[in-house]
Amino acid sequence: MAQIKTLTVLGTGVLGSQIAYQAAFSGFEVTAYDVDDQVLEQARARFARLAGIYQAEKVSDAAEGKAEAALKNLRLTADLADAVADADLVIEAVPELLELKRDVYRRLGELAPAKTVFATNSSTLLPSDLKDFTGRPDRFLAIHYANNIWVQNIAEVMGTADTDPAVYDAVVEFARNSGLEPIEIKKEKAGYVLNSLLVPLLNAAAGLLLQGVADPQTIDKTWRIATGAPSGPFQIFDVVGLTTAYNIASASPDAGSQAFAQHLKENYIDQGKLGVATGEGFYKY
Amino acid sequence: MAQIKTLTVLGTGVLGSQIAYQAAFSGFEVTAYDVDDQVLEQARARFARLAGIYQAEKVSDAAEGKAEAALKNLRLTADLADAVADADLVIEAVPELLELKRDVYRRLGELAPAKTVFATNSSTLLPSDLKDFTGRPDRFLAIHYANNIWVQNIAEVMGTADTDPAVYDAVVEFARNSGLEPIEIKKEKAGYVLNSLLVPLLNAAAGLLLQGVADPQTIDKTWRIATGAPSGPFQIFDVVGLTTAYNIASASPDAGSQAFAQHLKENYIDQGKLGVATGEGFYKY
Repeated sequence: MAQIKTLTVLGTGVLGSQIAYQAAFSGFEVTAYDVDDQVLEQARARFARLAGIYQAEKVSDAAEGKAEAALKNLRLTADLADAVADADLVIEAVPELLELKRDVYRRLGELAPAKTVFATNSSTLLPSDLKDFTGRPDRFLAIHYANNIWVQNIAEVMGTADTDPAVYDAVVEFARNSGLEPIEIKKEKAGYVLNSLLVPLLNAAAGLLLQGVADPQTIDKTWRIATGAPSGPFQIFDVVGLTTAYNIASASPDAGSQAFAQHLKENYIDQGKLGVATGEGFYKY
Repeated sequence: MAQIKTLTVLGTGVLGSQIAYQAAFSGFEVTAYDVDDQVLEQARARFARLAGIYQAEKVSDAAEGKAEAALKNLRLTADLADAVADADLVIEAVPELLELKRDVYRRLGELAPAKTVFATNSSTLLPSDLKDFTGRPDRFLAIHYANNIWVQNIAEVMGTADTDPAVYDAVVEFARNSGLEPIEIKKEKAGYVLNSLLVPLLNAAAGLLLQGVADPQTIDKTWRIATGAPSGPFQIFDVVGLTTAYNIASASPDAGSQAFAQHLKENYIDQGKLGVATGEGFYKY
C-alpha cells in the first residue's frame, strides 16, 4: 500500500468542504466533486470562507497567506470519472441516504482505478452497510470527521472485518498528514467513539430537563464547573444544531427521546431557534 | 427562616472535612463532629492539609494567612449534643449506610433545637429515604458536594416534596455564602444533576473499552479534542478512584457493568492500582 498523496472528496456540503479544505491546507492535491456547476459555485464560496477562518484563527500557526494559497490545491469538478481518475483516496461525504450512497459506490467502483481507497464519512451508517457495493471491500473503510475540523481536529478511522490492515494504516497516516489526530477504532461501532460518548450525555441532559429536575443553564453550569469542560450539554446541542438534535431524537423509539423531540419542535424549531447558526437556541448568541 | 450563620458537619471523612473547612474558610463558625477523639485527631490533620492546599492554590485569591486563619473557625467535638446545640444548619456526611444515617437522624431530631435545618450530603440515597427519621421533614433536604470542593465548587441543593421553600432558599444562600455555586435542583433525582450526567458518559466509555472498540487513551483523547474538556472519561475514573467505580459497577444488575467491575478488579484493583490516589490506574501519575 503506497502512501496516500491525492485526495478526492465527494460532496461539498458543510463537512465535505471542510474535509477537502483541511487536506488542501495541509498540502494535498485535492479534487472536490459535486453534482453540478451551481453547487460547485456554492462550494467555491465555502472554501473561500474556510480560508478566511483558517487565516483569522491562525490554524497550525499558519504563515501569512497559507490559508489563501491552500485554495490553489483545490480543483472542483462535476464529472465523477474525471474526479476520481487519479485519486489515491476518495472520501465520500454525500447526504446520509443509504440508497444514494450505495449508488455512489456502485458508480465509483466502476470509475476509479484499482489503487483507489474509498472511505465514507457517514455518521449514521456503518461501513458494513456499504462495503458490498464498493467492489473492493478490502480497500474500503470509514473516516469520520467532526464539524469545525480546524478546532475539533479528530478523524475517527474505522474499518470492517474485510478492510486490509495496510489500507487502514495508510488512512491513519493520511489523517495525521492532513493535520488531524487519528482516532483508531478497532471494531465497527455505530456512533464511532465520539458519538458513542456524547449521545448518552446529551440524552441524560435532555432527561433532566424534561423531568423538571433542572433548567438548561443549571445543568450546563454543573457540567462546566465539575468537569472543567468549556461547554455544558445544552451548549453542545446549540452547536450541533437543534434540527439535527430533533432528527436524532425523533428517530429513536424511546419515549423520552420522542418527548424531547416534541419539546425541541414546539419551543425552538417552530420559532426558528435552531441554535448557534440562527443566533438563538437554548441560549442567545 | 433566618439566615444560616452557624454550621455543624457530622463526619470528618474526605468530603465532610472539605465541607467543614470550606465553610470555615468562608467565615462561618463551624463545628465538626465525629465519633471519638482518635478520629478527630485525623480530622485535625485533614484540616491542616486542606489549609495547605487552599494556601498553595490561592483559593478565591485568598490573602496570605487566610487559609491558616480559617482553622480558628473550626471547633471539633465528639459530643453530638454539644455539636448541634446552636447549629443553624447540620450537614450530615456520615458513611453511606442507610441504617446508620437513619439512626443519626433519630438522635439529631431529639438533640437539635427546633430552628436547626438538617441536610444530607448522601450521594446514593434520596432525601426521601431519610426524611421520616428527622422529625422535621419541612426543615430537611440534601446538599451534595463534589470532591475537591475548592476546584469543583458546586453544591447541589435538592429538597423533598415536604421541604419548606424558605428553608430551601436559605440553604441555597448558605451555599453561595460559603463560596460555592449553588445548583438548584427542582425535583428529587437519584444522582442529582452531576452524577445523572456523568454516569452515562462513564458507562459508555467503559462499554467501548470492554467491547474492544478503542483503548482508554484513544477514548480520552477523542473526548478532550472534540469537547475541549481537560479530561476524558478514564482520567475521570482515575480521579474518582477505581474502588468507587468498582463498587458502583458491581452494584448494578446490568451485564456490561458487571463485566466492567470484573475488568477493574482483575486489571487494576487486585494490583493495587486504584487511580490517582495510588499513583496508577488507567494512567501512571
